[in-house]
Amino acid sequence: MSVFSAKVRSEVLKELVDIVSTLVAETKFNANKDSLDIRTVDLAHVAMIDLSLDSSAFESYKSSEEELGVNLDKMKDVLKLSKTGDIIELKHDEKKSRLVVTVDNITRSMSLVDTAGMSDPKVPNLELPARIVVKTADLARGIQAAQSVSDHVTFIASPDEFDIVAEGDTDKVELTLGKEKLVEINTKEKFKSMFPLDYLARIVKEIKCEEITLNLGTDYPVRMEFTIADGKGKAAYLLAPRIENA
Amino acid sequence: MSVFSAKVRSEVLKELVDIVSTLVAETKFNANKDSLDIRTVDLAHVAMIDLSLDSSAFESYKSSEEELGVNLDKMKDVLKLSKTGDIIELKHDEKKSRLVVTVDNITRSMSLVDTAGMSDPKVPNLELPARIVVKTADLARGIQAAQSVSDHVTFIASPDEFDIVAEGDTDKVELTLGKEKLVEINTKEKFKSMFPLDYLARIVKEIKCEEITLNLGTDYPVRMEFTIADGKGKAAYLLAPRIENA
Amino acid sequence: MSVFSAKVRSEVLKELVDIVSTLVAETKFNANKDSLDIRTVDLAHVAMIDLSLDSSAFESYKSSEEELGVNLDKMKDVLKLSKTGDIIELKHDEKKSRLVVTVDNITRSMSLVDTAGMSDPKVPNLELPARIVVKTADLARGIQAAQSVSDHVTFIASPDEFDIVAEGDTDKVELTLGKEKLVEINTKEKFKSMFPLDYLARIVKEIKCEEITLNLGTDYPVRMEFTIADGKGKAAYLLAPRIENA
Repeated sequence: MSVFSAKVRSEVLKELVDIVSTLVAETKFNANKDSLDIRTVDLAHVAMIDLSLDSSAFESYKSSEEELGVNLDKMKDVLKLSKTGDIIELKHDEKKSRLVVTVDNITRSMSLVDTAGMSDPKVPNLELPARIVVKTADLARGIQAAQSVSDHVTFIASPDEFDIVAEGDTDKVELTLGKEKLVEINTKEKFKSMFPLDYLARIVKEIKCEEITLNLGTDYPVRMEFTIADGKGKAAYLLAPRIENA
Repeated sequence: MSVFSAKVRSEVLKELVDIVSTLVAETKFNANKDSLDIRTVDLAHVAMIDLSLDSSAFESYKSSEEELGVNLDKMKDVLKLSKTGDIIELKHDEKKSRLVVTVDNITRSMSLVDTAGMSDPKVPNLELPARIVVKTADLARGIQAAQSVSDHVTFIASPDEFDIVAEGDTDKVELTLGKEKLVEINTKEKFKSMFPLDYLARIVKEIKCEEITLNLGTDYPVRMEFTIADGKGKAAYLLAPRIENA
Repeated sequence: MSVFSAKVRSEVLKELVDIVSTLVAETKFNANKDSLDIRTVDLAHVAMIDLSLDSSAFESYKSSEEELGVNLDKMKDVLKLSKTGDIIELKHDEKKSRLVVTVDNITRSMSLVDTAGMSDPKVPNLELPARIVVKTADLARGIQAAQSVSDHVTFIASPDEFDIVAEGDTDKVELTLGKEKLVEINTKEKFKSMFPLDYLARIVKEIKCEEITLNLGTDYPVRMEFTIADGKGKAAYLLAPRIENA
């Protein structure tokens, strides 16, 4: 018999939903014994999220191995009925194939999405030689600045600094973060890759933790790692590079 | 000779205008000796407002029996020039068929609307067996929740609880208010009627008092009663049911 | 050799950019030894801004006589990356014909606009007999009220009061400012001119100083004078009258 029953604070569920919905409108919740996991790619196969929320992030959590197809827009509707600190109850009604979500005295019973067509994307095994730990606010500022001149941006890791550079037809924007501005930087050589700004802007906006770890190569995907739920969960965001025509 | 001259605090006039303009853009102010009354139905004849603002709600009030055709959008323009606590002066300039509205040192003279074509709707005499007094905030929350799954909602009164239920094609939302959550409930049997959500959402948003009295039957209109102007006026909102095809 | 290098607080640059961009999207910065000057007319030749920001308004300022063609929208993008109190550095890179703008660790290099086609409008020599010093908030309120009935407004200066009057097809709005409401009024006769409201609304919104001096005649342009940068600069806004057909 299938079991999934959990209570979670509104803001924890909201953080998860906001992150995943930067890529997809529907996703599969892999409810395991000790964690709720989500792994999803966007339709264009440009970005992947690989996320795990520990059972300790919940007020209560009980699950057999379950796959729940969830419409994230419906989840957002429910979240709008709650405020920070409110407890949201989630229960799988297997017979009706519904997820029953309760906030205070409101109950929403939502049909689950068929997960048959949803694949389980493999997380690529990438050798990314440069590792930079940057403040989320600094990364967000660089991305915002870049958006005014271009639709893509180059991340450049050097032994002593990390640069965010965007070049438009006439204008150029550069954010330089020296060692003293970074939490950590670890690379022996220079590595650089270019990325689409819209994806970056969307995900960075939803990251609540203060630091992000970037793993970078040259003309390789970036792997952004950050924690969720005040450290009781973790997420990785992989973004394909945009290769410049030589 | 016609006389209508009144001074009123901005927020009192705003409350009245906001309520009435959920149904119509132009209405007739029936200025009587001791109260300003408005009775109006929307173009689709789905809802009616029957409202009376006592002369004690005004800073000063003097009127013979007057009918003033008022464009509510123009009133809103004037209200935007004032803030809570400001005194607005209204004067009927009969010769020019204008309403002269003064806020501080700004005077707006607005043409009155011809009231000849405006009927005086009769308030239907309804036997509504169930009476529920609910907190405005609870009703508003139930209506908001319902809007995410449907465009209509069912109110169900039972001896021990009041339920707001909305059913969409795949999802269902329920707000259950037990006796302890209600100010009052008074019905011997179960009664239920379905109503259009857009009308309910629009009016509930404008209700400033903390409690609303609902009078309900089965497949009958609902009569919502609430006070305005901190109790110095009262309003009834009647809304036609949506009858389900059997 | 050309030199232009300046540091300025974000809010000072923002005030200047917001004022000038009520009329144009591109303009010429005339960087002189002791001040940064801008003189510009809108495409329709209805309004002119004549503005001078003293070098004392800058944190540091050094310039030979320079003409810099600046795209104001790009400036706004940079300003969005900064907050009140942040220092913005401006440097002319003559070789590349670029303006290099630095906010903290972000550098934006922006191409300059060709100033060849930009004329230097002459400030007309006007005899405007009435002079009124009005509070910016009062003028703004009169303009807002006028907008609800018309798209133009009449300024009327009399020896004892200043009136703002707008007349629509059916409605009329009047703001009367008696001597006690004005900082100063100085006219022996009555003068009145009519002006387009959209221009007035746009500029008044951007005026940060508390008082505006209006110089008025009959069927003549109005000359509005106000300070910028907390008194370390000044601006004049000239607006052509709208002549009523007699």
